[in-house]
Amino acid sequence: MSIVLGANQYGKAEVRVVKVTRDDPRHEIEDLSVTSQLRGDFAAAHLTGDNRHVVPTDTQKNTVFAFARDGIGSPEEFLLRLADHFTGSFEWVTGGRWTAESYAWHRIHVDGDPHDHAFVRVGQETRTAVVVADGGERHVLGGLHGLTLLKTTGSGFEGYPKDRYTTLPETRDRILATDVATRWRYLPGADVDYNAVYADVKRILLEEFTRRYSAALQTTMFELGTAVLEAHDEIAEMRFSLPNKHHFAVDLAPFGLDNPNEVFYAADRPYGLIEAQITREGIDPADAAWEGATAFC
Amino acid sequence: MSIVLGANQYGKAEVRVVKVTRDDPRHEIEDLSVTSQLRGDFAAAHLTGDNRHVVPTDTQKNTVFAFARDGIGSPEEFLLRLADHFTGSFEWVTGGRWTAESYAWHRIHVDGDPHDHAFVRVGQETRTAVVVADGGERHVLGGLHGLTLLKTTGSGFEGYPKDRYTTLPETRDRILATDVATRWRYLPGADVDYNAVYADVKRILLEEFTRRYSAALQTTMFELGTAVLEAHDEIAEMRFSLPNKHHFAVDLAPFGLDNPNEVFYAADRPYGLIEAQITREGIDPADAAWEGATAFC
Amino acid sequence: MSIVLGANQYGKAEVRVVKVTRDDPRHEIEDLSVTSQLRGDFAAAHLTGDNRHVVPTDTQKNTVFAFARDGIGSPEEFLLRLADHFTGSFEWVTGGRWTAESYAWHRIHVDGDPHDHAFVRVGQETRTAVVVADGGERHVLGGLHGLTLLKTTGSGFEGYPKDRYTTLPETRDRILATDVATRWRYLPGADVDYNAVYADVKRILLEEFTRRYSAALQTTMFELGTAVLEAHDEIAEMRFSLPNKHHFAVDLAPFGLDNPNEVFYAADRPYGLIEAQITREGIDPADAAWEGATAFC
Amino acid sequence: MSIVLGANQYGKAEVRVVKVTRDDPRHEIEDLSVTSQLRGDFAAAHLTGDNRHVVPTDTQKNTVFAFARDGIGSPEEFLLRLADHFTGSFEWVTGGRWTAESYAWHRIHVDGDPHDHAFVRVGQETRTAVVVADGGERHVLGGLHGLTLLKTTGSGFEGYPKDRYTTLPETRDRILATDVATRWRYLPGADVDYNAVYADVKRILLEEFTRRYSAALQTTMFELGTAVLEAHDEIAEMRFSLPNKHHFAVDLAPFGLDNPNEVFYAADRPYGLIEAQITREGIDPADAAWEGATAFC
Repeated sequence: MSIVLGANQYGKAEVRVVKVTRDDPRHEIEDLSVTSQLRGDFAAAHLTGDNRHVVPTDTQKNTVFAFARDGIGSPEEFLLRLADHFTGSFEWVTGGRWTAESYAWHRIHVDGDPHDHAFVRVGQETRTAVVVADGGERHVLGGLHGLTLLKTTGSGFEGYPKDRYTTLPETRDRILATDVATRWRYLPGADVDYNAVYADVKRILLEEFTRRYSAALQTTMFELGTAVLEAHDEIAEMRFSLPNKHHFAVDLAPFGLDNPNEVFYAADRPYGLIEAQITREGIDPADAAWEGATAFC
Repeated sequence: MSIVLGANQYGKAEVRVVKVTRDDPRHEIEDLSVTSQLRGDFAAAHLTGDNRHVVPTDTQKNTVFAFARDGIGSPEEFLLRLADHFTGSFEWVTGGRWTAESYAWHRIHVDGDPHDHAFVRVGQETRTAVVVADGGERHVLGGLHGLTLLKTTGSGFEGYPKDRYTTLPETRDRILATDVATRWRYLPGADVDYNAVYADVKRILLEEFTRRYSAALQTTMFELGTAVLEAHDEIAEMRFSLPNKHHFAVDLAPFGLDNPNEVFYAADRPYGLIEAQITREGIDPADAAWEGATAFC
Repeated sequence: MSIVLGANQYGKAEVRVVKVTRDDPRHEIEDLSVTSQLRGDFAAAHLTGDNRHVVPTDTQKNTVFAFARDGIGSPEEFLLRLADHFTGSFEWVTGGRWTAESYAWHRIHVDGDPHDHAFVRVGQETRTAVVVADGGERHVLGGLHGLTLLKTTGSGFEGYPKDRYTTLPETRDRILATDVATRWRYLPGADVDYNAVYADVKRILLEEFTRRYSAALQTTMFELGTAVLEAHDEIAEMRFSLPNKHHFAVDLAPFGLDNPNEVFYAADRPYGLIEAQITREGIDPADAAWEGATAFC
Repeated sequence: MSIVLGANQYGKAEVRVVKVTRDDPRHEIEDLSVTSQLRGDFAAAHLTGDNRHVVPTDTQKNTVFAFARDGIGSPEEFLLRLADHFTGSFEWVTGGRWTAESYAWHRIHVDGDPHDHAFVRVGQETRTAVVVADGGERHVLGGLHGLTLLKTTGSGFEGYPKDRYTTLPETRDRILATDVATRWRYLPGADVDYNAVYADVKRILLEEFTRRYSAALQTTMFELGTAVLEAHDEIAEMRFSLPNKHHFAVDLAPFGLDNPNEVFYAADRPYGLIEAQITREGIDPADAAWEGATAFC
């Protein structure tokens, strides 16, 4: 049986580009880590070391910096520009995957006023974006990770099946904590203000996390996704990967103390991990939007 | 358009289990981080907070520890036992994904002799394993990451296309360095000594990395995959994700010094990223073996 | 020459304690990682394995949780309570070092109102505290790390000495970026509202970073320290460890583009590292406040 | 009370230099992360922004690369060369602190033979070195961290004091695991083969960890230090910072299983932390060798 090359991609990862817009004394800052990966006909490089099709990863990096000269705008728009450039410039590049993390900065306030050119990094969640080009198609994913949420009550877990390995007690009052990691796929062709949608999705996630009693993190996750999809017609689906960050009430009885859910031990590992897709019924699943070449997740 | 639940999975992540076998004075140690995720009919928990199907993640953790009482053997066999248990114990659990990292230990030598119960952690690559259960099917992936290889010569990059953004000079003598991350899929039904295959795959990766001049990391990657597949009939395909860890020769001319590829700056970011599947022709692609539920990679 | 035991300390590190105060429906949350280390007469344990003086690290952990039952208040006050407890409970414990990191949470706003029991982790800087007990003396250090500040202009570096290894060009316009890490020592006996001082020190650091042109990070660091000391009589000295996080303007000339300090490459390593003590003249240096037992920094 | 500048230092951190020696086909590789910090008269830069004494951190970086052109030899010798250069080249530089981490590589074996120019990173412990120059004095510290050792038996903890917060049971059979972090100070003026001593200290640490029953990690730590000092006259003192990495035997009784110390949960946090100095009696303590400027440990 002969051995063949399957799906492949290559490029430059984690290009840390900071764009300062200084058209007037009030500067703007955009801060990204960009990864560019090309797909297409690269068989010769793999099979025979013939690099005639291999646009150097160094060139991809240079292109990121050169394109930043005209501004970023939003991570999604910046990646779309890169996608169009690479697929339009090299006939054997039929697609690719471009991703970005972006880091938010706030203006420092001095005597109550926001400063023109001094900033403090927000440090909360990291915004993410993905553009997948597949021939003429463009798939756009927004997202974020590292948004850490916690409820000190209003969460429980009951009514689950028991077997010989079950020792967990049921509860109607526990801490619920998670680091939200989510991506959402924009409907193809939607005319989107990506920065505005991002801000509103984050607002919805925060608010919906709080609204209702949580019978399980699964339920809360589905509510988060539903609320976003109901508010944003331009989003086709949401995907979540939510750790259940356990906070265990410490048994203080040996020390002659009660503990009415006031003192907790925050555990690192293991943690629960709750993952799902939440989608509009009947839409094209667009698997290509989600696939890496090697599925290392 | 109504909103529906798509693919989903949940479980306990990073259960750190250490198994000591002490049947005689010469102890054995097995050290793993195990993740268990169940797939099946969990719609009620998501949609209505009805947990009757939700085998607690705490129970999954307990099961990992209980099963370790009978020994690990190999990460792959241990995960297969977990898969059979969960799919066999709960009728609504139709599949799942179990993964492990494992950490190697060497016996400490005292006066030249390996000690019975004292060990030093090897600290080199991390071994990985994945078992995906999909109804009655079982997919098994072996793998490793963090195996850092470097050649001080015998590597170049030439003959690539140039455009207005290309500044990279061609070379026939550079450092080639990478952290090998790879997974391989075992053919279904193969009778495999997983530990022995793992050791031999690692040996092949090390040896093949060195054998030939590298015209591009893509070429070397394909050679690595081909060599493994040629030596191991029980492996259906290899997937690689290889950073190109750049080592730049420092320009010492301003200091009146030459630098015939002797002094290098080892850069952190950005780095090249080269990824591919290398497969036997005509085999079933077995996409289910590779898919997470949320494709966050 | 005989071999002897020198300075030593031991305890439990990184006890992750979360305290929820739920006296009324509006809950409060305090989130800390506490380390407790005891000093005193522990020679027998080291020399002969006699543990009669070794208060178990497990007991130290239990004590942290038990003391949290009565509330945290501020990290500094909590550590002072621990110091008094351990030095007061075991006659051979003559001192110790207690440290904490604390993590801030904001209330989630729903429809404009802060929620009673739902929180989002702020994720910006980490607050630190240290209490050193040395016999009856108590030294208290406040601090923070991970506060990332950046100015897009208003910073330069000129007039430095040149030698054969100097290639850096002078500039009056560069990005200045740093992750502030600082500790400050409270004057012994001062009556301090630690939380209020912390908030005000952070405010001063942010404001002073922006106020003036920075001729060197050293100058800016000294201005930060001076401003804090001038505003807070209860603080004896400030110490800083400030990376100079380099942002290099990318040379876009090869691509036919100018770059008037708009596109930057944010480098990871190497980075500048600027460190100093800024103190009130003539005060007791209180070396014991700053010393670990093993000085591993 | 006026505000003054105290101790200070500055420089370039984490310069990643890789030196390949290719005098013949059998290449050698040395891989370091070097930090250079200068001490002396830098008051003007702090107080008035006058940089006439500020040897740029960029120049310090360049010097590291230029000096590597002549080879590294050992980390300690390389740092000594840097110390002599900077204190000898700038009259206001009266001292400084130079540190290195170094990363070991093994030759890849092909068909049983070590290869001339292909290497695999060892990945076990990280070797460290420090040189402190204080006027004409030179202090040299060797060290390592990240050496993870574990005994599956031959360790216990008994006879400790109990109070109301003590719940830990006594044991004579537990897992003992630690990540050794140690530094040792060479006697001034000793003529040392630093690489040979390093290898032998590591050997001794491994062997001594195993030799005896451990009544407490303190006892074992003192044995490690004593064994090194007895074997190496050129070493004045050892300092250790040893986490006690807890491995808890899992209670399997709820599942109808015994657990004769075979199945363990490896906890991340909290962990014990045991630290001490072990010295030759009567030697000069050489505090300057151990002090950073800001004591952030």
